[in-house]
Amino acid sequence: MIQTTQIILETRGDCQIVDISSQVRRTVSQASITGDAIVVLFHVGSTGGLTTLEYEPGLVNHDIKAMFDNIAPADGSYEHEKTWDDDNGHAHCRASLLGPSLTIPVIKGQLALGTWQQIVLIDFDTRPRTRTIVCQILT
Amino acid sequence: MIQTTQIILETRGDCQIVDISSQVRRTVSQASITGDAIVVLFHVGSTGGLTTLEYEPGLVNHDIKAMFDNIAPADGSYEHEKTWDDDNGHAHCRASLLGPSLTIPVIKGQLALGTWQQIVLIDFDTRPRTRTIVCQILT
Amino acid sequence: MIQTTQIILETRGDCQIVDISSQVRRTVSQASITGDAIVVLFHVGSTGGLTTLEYEPGLVNHDIKAMFDNIAPADGSYEHEKTWDDDNGHAHCRASLLGPSLTIPVIKGQLALGTWQQIVLIDFDTRPRTRTIVCQILT
Repeated sequence: MIQTTQIILETRGDCQIVDISSQVRRTVSQASITGDAIVVLFHVGSTGGLTTLEYEPGLVNHDIKAMFDNIAPADGSYEHEKTWDDDNGHAHCRASLLGPSLTIPVIKGQLALGTWQQIVLIDFDTRPRTRTIVCQILT
Repeated sequence: MIQTTQIILETRGDCQIVDISSQVRRTVSQASITGDAIVVLFHVGSTGGLTTLEYEPGLVNHDIKAMFDNIAPADGSYEHEKTWDDDNGHAHCRASLLGPSLTIPVIKGQLALGTWQQIVLIDFDTRPRTRTIVCQILT
Repeated sequence: MIQTTQIILETRGDCQIVDISSQVRRTVSQASITGDAIVVLFHVGSTGGLTTLEYEPGLVNHDIKAMFDNIAPADGSYEHEKTWDDDNGHAHCRASLLGPSLTIPVIKGQLALGTWQQIVLIDFDTRPRTRTIVCQILT
């Protein structure tokens, strides 16, 4: 059985990292899952992505952004920006690399995350957005 | 219920990006999915991978390739190439980072993609290949 | 139906790459899967991740590590390390980029891997760890 819900978030972009673990946990709880299940998460859109990390200020406010600045610099030269007179070429590149989907086991009703492992959306865009994450619970 | 099909593609490599959204959409349609489902995609092989992006010429023909050239340069020094007298060490590294699997929700028979979000195969290899992507629809 | 098992590994970190294909294959075999199925793998923890690659010495002992040294250098400056008096900021960054989850099709009882494509855990941490990979088989 597949139960589909959506998590809606307001974001500000610029490599903002949002911890969505509690929302995902609530979705599992509201679906009355007490046994094993699989949660499929999918970020709708091409300038953000999903992963897990230890949600602490050093990583969230500095280190992850520094890595992505190294991979695809915000001030780099992008054909995407020339074509569309836009400024978010780096956001598209980073999002493609990170990926939009994540699959997380549920064991006896609990997300199988590590103690220091949170589920996050990273928004790479250059302006505030309303973001949608599709959350499917498979039992 | 799991329905398994395969998408077969001829590629030329060198960071070629192929939009497979229409093939995946056709697979969902042919499976007569009208409710919710989950599509699992898997690239068979170690020099290509799957992600989503806005399929437009600037990103597809330049920016994504430039990012991967930065991450694992085509002209870099790779032990893989010395060992196997090969030239695609960068292709293996990039493919491992991008990853072979992608999971996409289907809601009321439609793939839950953003307007500017296409499903793509990126082929990093240095020669033409016949590529197989396994497509499983879970209902 | 979902069958959940765990793969437990002792690792030494420092970008160690462990081939877990045979463990995953054994899990599929022990679940008596003869038809189609989906295997969901999830690495518990924030300093390691999962992907596929050709498991050969050049890539495993040198090239993949060199790529990650380029992406997030081990000797870089990380706020995570200053905050927690730790030395594994690069490990957290790399793991977030690689991602914790992987989804692999099973066709007629066999993992749909390429001939030169193995399932691996990459442990980026800076000390030996006991690692847990949750393995769910969906039929």
